[in-house]
Amino acid sequence: MTFTVFSDEHYMREALKEARYALEKDEVPIGAVVVSQNQIIARAHNLTQTLNDVTAHAEMQAITAAANYLGGKYLKDCTLYVTVEPCVMCAGALRWAQITRVVYGTADDKSGASTAGKSLYHPKTKVEYGLLETDCRELMQHFFREKRK
Amino acid sequence: MTFTVFSDEHYMREALKEARYALEKDEVPIGAVVVSQNQIIARAHNLTQTLNDVTAHAEMQAITAAANYLGGKYLKDCTLYVTVEPCVMCAGALRWAQITRVVYGTADDKSGASTAGKSLYHPKTKVEYGLLETDCRELMQHFFREKRK
Repeated sequence: MTFTVFSDEHYMREALKEARYALEKDEVPIGAVVVSQNQIIARAHNLTQTLNDVTAHAEMQAITAAANYLGGKYLKDCTLYVTVEPCVMCAGALRWAQITRVVYGTADDKSGASTAGKSLYHPKTKVEYGLLETDCRELMQHFFREKRK
Repeated sequence: MTFTVFSDEHYMREALKEARYALEKDEVPIGAVVVSQNQIIARAHNLTQTLNDVTAHAEMQAITAAANYLGGKYLKDCTLYVTVEPCVMCAGALRWAQITRVVYGTADDKSGASTAGKSLYHPKTKVEYGLLETDCRELMQHFFREKRK
């Protein structure tokens, strides 16, 4: 039996795939996956325009889907990979979910949770960033450049 | 034709009704209504246990429902009445929704948005609190007292 342990980069590429699905729908291109025990248990992309709903961020949908998969509210031993830094709302949700680890690609200097000044995540949550940063950022820049045309 | 303009207290009593529905379901008793042009356009109560979903706070559901009613993401000229101070997640969502006004009953010194140190709401949002504070607080105290038994 072969057992493959995928890398963080592998999962972030899956989040990037989700971000591109958002782009195809003319949504701000942000994608996310939740991984538990080396397996993707939830995947989602931003759908705020499509659903007319400010709460439909990729992370929020991924949290709900992952909890549904696990049959419990808490995302312990789970990692969220998301292409862009979570906003205040999403960091607040991740805090309630007590997620073990958050990995994001590129920072959001305007609306990212880190603009709040103090950490909004759960004290137990490990937060890392900068993975495939260029790919994640360029997707966002492309979207907003096209919007300004 | 008679046109009745209801008071803030009237709407907070409606939010309290929602909080009591949550209590009946053994959920943390928090209720919310969204009012636009003197009319309740959304009502919700906390369902995090029932739905196994940390994002199912009363405010989040009310935001989604109100946007659905209005056919647009932004809750301009809307007031959210909620029995307990919104948490970081909900304040973040209310920021995205650019809601005009938030009125809450009792503070949440542990998880309320004001614990973040700086305002998480939209700069245009007017935030008021203390309306029917005793009723809102006692409902919460009753719930947690029963849980400790």
